[in-house]
Amino acid sequence: MYSIDLNSDLGESFGAYKIGRDEDVIPLISSANVACGFHAGDPSVMAKTAALCKENGIAIGAHPGFNDLVGFGRRNMSVAPSDIKNMIIYQVGALDAFCRASGIRMQHVKPHGALYNMAAKDAAVAGAICEGIYEYNPELVLMGLANSEMINQAKKLGLPYAAEVFADRAYEDDGTLVARTKPGAMIKDENDAVSRVVGMIKNHRVTSINGNEIEISPDSVCVHGGREKAIVFVKKISETLNGEGIIIKPVCEIISER
Amino acid sequence: MYSIDLNSDLGESFGAYKIGRDEDVIPLISSANVACGFHAGDPSVMAKTAALCKENGIAIGAHPGFNDLVGFGRRNMSVAPSDIKNMIIYQVGALDAFCRASGIRMQHVKPHGALYNMAAKDAAVAGAICEGIYEYNPELVLMGLANSEMINQAKKLGLPYAAEVFADRAYEDDGTLVARTKPGAMIKDENDAVSRVVGMIKNHRVTSINGNEIEISPDSVCVHGGREKAIVFVKKISETLNGEGIIIKPVCEIISER
Amino acid sequence: MYSIDLNSDLGESFGAYKIGRDEDVIPLISSANVACGFHAGDPSVMAKTAALCKENGIAIGAHPGFNDLVGFGRRNMSVAPSDIKNMIIYQVGALDAFCRASGIRMQHVKPHGALYNMAAKDAAVAGAICEGIYEYNPELVLMGLANSEMINQAKKLGLPYAAEVFADRAYEDDGTLVARTKPGAMIKDENDAVSRVVGMIKNHRVTSINGNEIEISPDSVCVHGGREKAIVFVKKISETLNGEGIIIKPVCEIISER
Amino acid sequence: MYSIDLNSDLGESFGAYKIGRDEDVIPLISSANVACGFHAGDPSVMAKTAALCKENGIAIGAHPGFNDLVGFGRRNMSVAPSDIKNMIIYQVGALDAFCRASGIRMQHVKPHGALYNMAAKDAAVAGAICEGIYEYNPELVLMGLANSEMINQAKKLGLPYAAEVFADRAYEDDGTLVARTKPGAMIKDENDAVSRVVGMIKNHRVTSINGNEIEISPDSVCVHGGREKAIVFVKKISETLNGEGIIIKPVCEIISER
Repeated sequence: MYSIDLNSDLGESFGAYKIGRDEDVIPLISSANVACGFHAGDPSVMAKTAALCKENGIAIGAHPGFNDLVGFGRRNMSVAPSDIKNMIIYQVGALDAFCRASGIRMQHVKPHGALYNMAAKDAAVAGAICEGIYEYNPELVLMGLANSEMINQAKKLGLPYAAEVFADRAYEDDGTLVARTKPGAMIKDENDAVSRVVGMIKNHRVTSINGNEIEISPDSVCVHGGREKAIVFVKKISETLNGEGIIIKPVCEIISER
Repeated sequence: MYSIDLNSDLGESFGAYKIGRDEDVIPLISSANVACGFHAGDPSVMAKTAALCKENGIAIGAHPGFNDLVGFGRRNMSVAPSDIKNMIIYQVGALDAFCRASGIRMQHVKPHGALYNMAAKDAAVAGAICEGIYEYNPELVLMGLANSEMINQAKKLGLPYAAEVFADRAYEDDGTLVARTKPGAMIKDENDAVSRVVGMIKNHRVTSINGNEIEISPDSVCVHGGREKAIVFVKKISETLNGEGIIIKPVCEIISER
Repeated sequence: MYSIDLNSDLGESFGAYKIGRDEDVIPLISSANVACGFHAGDPSVMAKTAALCKENGIAIGAHPGFNDLVGFGRRNMSVAPSDIKNMIIYQVGALDAFCRASGIRMQHVKPHGALYNMAAKDAAVAGAICEGIYEYNPELVLMGLANSEMINQAKKLGLPYAAEVFADRAYEDDGTLVARTKPGAMIKDENDAVSRVVGMIKNHRVTSINGNEIEISPDSVCVHGGREKAIVFVKKISETLNGEGIIIKPVCEIISER
Repeated sequence: MYSIDLNSDLGESFGAYKIGRDEDVIPLISSANVACGFHAGDPSVMAKTAALCKENGIAIGAHPGFNDLVGFGRRNMSVAPSDIKNMIIYQVGALDAFCRASGIRMQHVKPHGALYNMAAKDAAVAGAICEGIYEYNPELVLMGLANSEMINQAKKLGLPYAAEVFADRAYEDDGTLVARTKPGAMIKDENDAVSRVVGMIKNHRVTSINGNEIEISPDSVCVHGGREKAIVFVKKISETLNGEGIIIKPVCEIISER
């Protein structure tokens, strides 16, 4: 019996600015990463998104990012680890407030954008994130890149963790993502992408960019809901997983069976 | 046996910018209102301030304000009540995160500046604030201007409330504050200010700007810690209250004896 | 020979957030009001929008607003007149920098949203805006609501001004706009809206909400380019004006013939 | 006949937050670098600071930084060169607006903090800054670290430049600053610091951290005015320069004699 979590970034609108098609993607996923007002999102968007998650019965998590709205949290920033830890506590608490007000339970924390990418490689950044989560609530699940420094730090601290994989990205031999700047970094063929995901779930293996079979144990697959085409792809993944007998469910359930 | 809470606004620094003498005022008060990052404060300042409150054994509360850092939250803004409610939930949750991470319990919420002043008179604003607090945690105490709309709305909702008075402000016959723009709005004589506070605590009475004795039942007195002179005045109040046998203690204890 | 300016708000995107269909509306108008980074817009959006105006040969103006991105500058704020003046100088200078860098000349300044609405009625706000523009460059044209306090203050100061009208709004007997909250505030029939505009241009008259003929002398008509439907309406206005022999040209040319 | 410019960062207050002792340092310097609202400063602080520069007859320049108020512009950010260029144009134009409104002429642009440090070494960042300045006004002087990439890029573009040195910092053999993290990076002895400055001005030489005599041709010396102790040191430098017959004057005059 196989199972996996599908996660997507939601609640990225801000004031009059709309991004994403949250209503369309939410029925297809099992976990939502909700922006917390630093790189995207605002209090009213967060309230609405928490309500949407509750209504659709999917798990909710915080998606904290750098305080860089104009850069959408996608620009690296040299922030001191102690400040990173505090900015995690702040954003996680802010989103949790809407969970509490809505009577739902927060499941996980997945760092966003540049913070996610930095934390994948930088032990100090990853450690600060994990400490912030742990000090706030040691039962929250850190969702981070499979085989990355984020997972290492969570293990070290005893924080529950979930390994995330990407359908549309190539992997290096060591299980890390191929940098976007390298040729071949993106898996452009959709059928290929989907069958790679199935292989990762069923066999815990994927072919690296160098043609080697490498080990990978995914707890969650990241999907995107920004455009019509993206929604169609999420449907395709979802249907293929169903057809393969792979159950889609929230990541806390996935890791409890690990 | 008389008792009262002394509260002060703390944690108003921001990044490289320092405001206030938190270390000096904190030993003199029983409750701290901590800025939540919208009109003042940042995550690392909040973490430090929560630790300072814990260390000094004083009660901590959130001090949410308008999202107007350059105006320090002192400028009225026509924000929709639903947005006010959500911005309260956000800020209260953000501060509560630092309380949880520090292992302390949040006591109260006191709106800041223009939000406080608007809520004192505007039922929709006051109602939105109280609803936000109530939905987040119905055991939190709303600290608001004595005899104001904030207190009315908290009572209506069943939210615990604390009536705040000001040593240095004159009162109208209906128990509301005399507008700062009116002559006589400020009580400039320090001895007069202190004896008015004692009278409010012991007799539940104060002389209005029109010379009438009016009823007022203070749970907390607001004091300021910005400058050396202010600290000296807080010491004077504190010592006078001690001398009068009035015990200074957190507002949750004050109202539990009401 | 009749002529009029058609103006529209452009450059309201921000970082990853897109608003408006600037490319579609720009060929239909003669003056663009470009957001300056406070309520909308960012430096790179401003650069792009200035280039777009240059490329299409339309006049450019600054569209300064309150420092309230999450509220899109639509929420009233009680800002001191001296601060309003400085925030106008700042934003006008910032946009002018992109005009200078692009080798084009800034034509006008039109306040945005809540600032526009407050300035229409409040002499202190309107005066502060006009002073800011005048001190920066006394040749810039203030674009403001016809028959409003903005126009009064510009006249008083000797600042060039342009009176703006709205196709889709009803007018009071005194020539001011009917508040949106009142029934009948919006002119919903498109043909009616267009013929009212033609009447204002040719006869300097429009029928008020009370059925009276009132005087109004428009220099510019505000049009919107947010959605497909809006673009269609702008095309309709543009074609009707052409058919009526009314020439569409930048507001500086309109007022130089006054 | 020797001469030099003394420059200092001014106008770094923000809303209710005060930083620096601008009034005390301004009589001692010849050029002011004024924050432009991104890492510090706000429109009203900029207006006040421009007036102060005019009043004291010192030259004014823009001090643009990263859009990171909570980090005071001191944190590296991976911003695309095209965005850096536009953020320079924006900030320079914003400050220039206050110069124009005050009837004074902007002299120079000196990048702030992390942007300054990154530009000293990164040709793409330095080039973007220089292009932004050049496109806005090719007569403005770039003030940058002596012997750095900033100076190279200005030369390449034909933009006027001024080489800045630091009294309290050690230099590597190649004329760049010793990183603050290295032992010996700071010149702690004040007399030593002052005599090094005199040597740089008179002999165009300074002793590197490795004990070698290296060439350096300063146009301006950076001084700080944050604290009482700093002001005393600026006075000491100023008096020593006077005693040595070195005239203190704005950097545009210095470089016109180069």
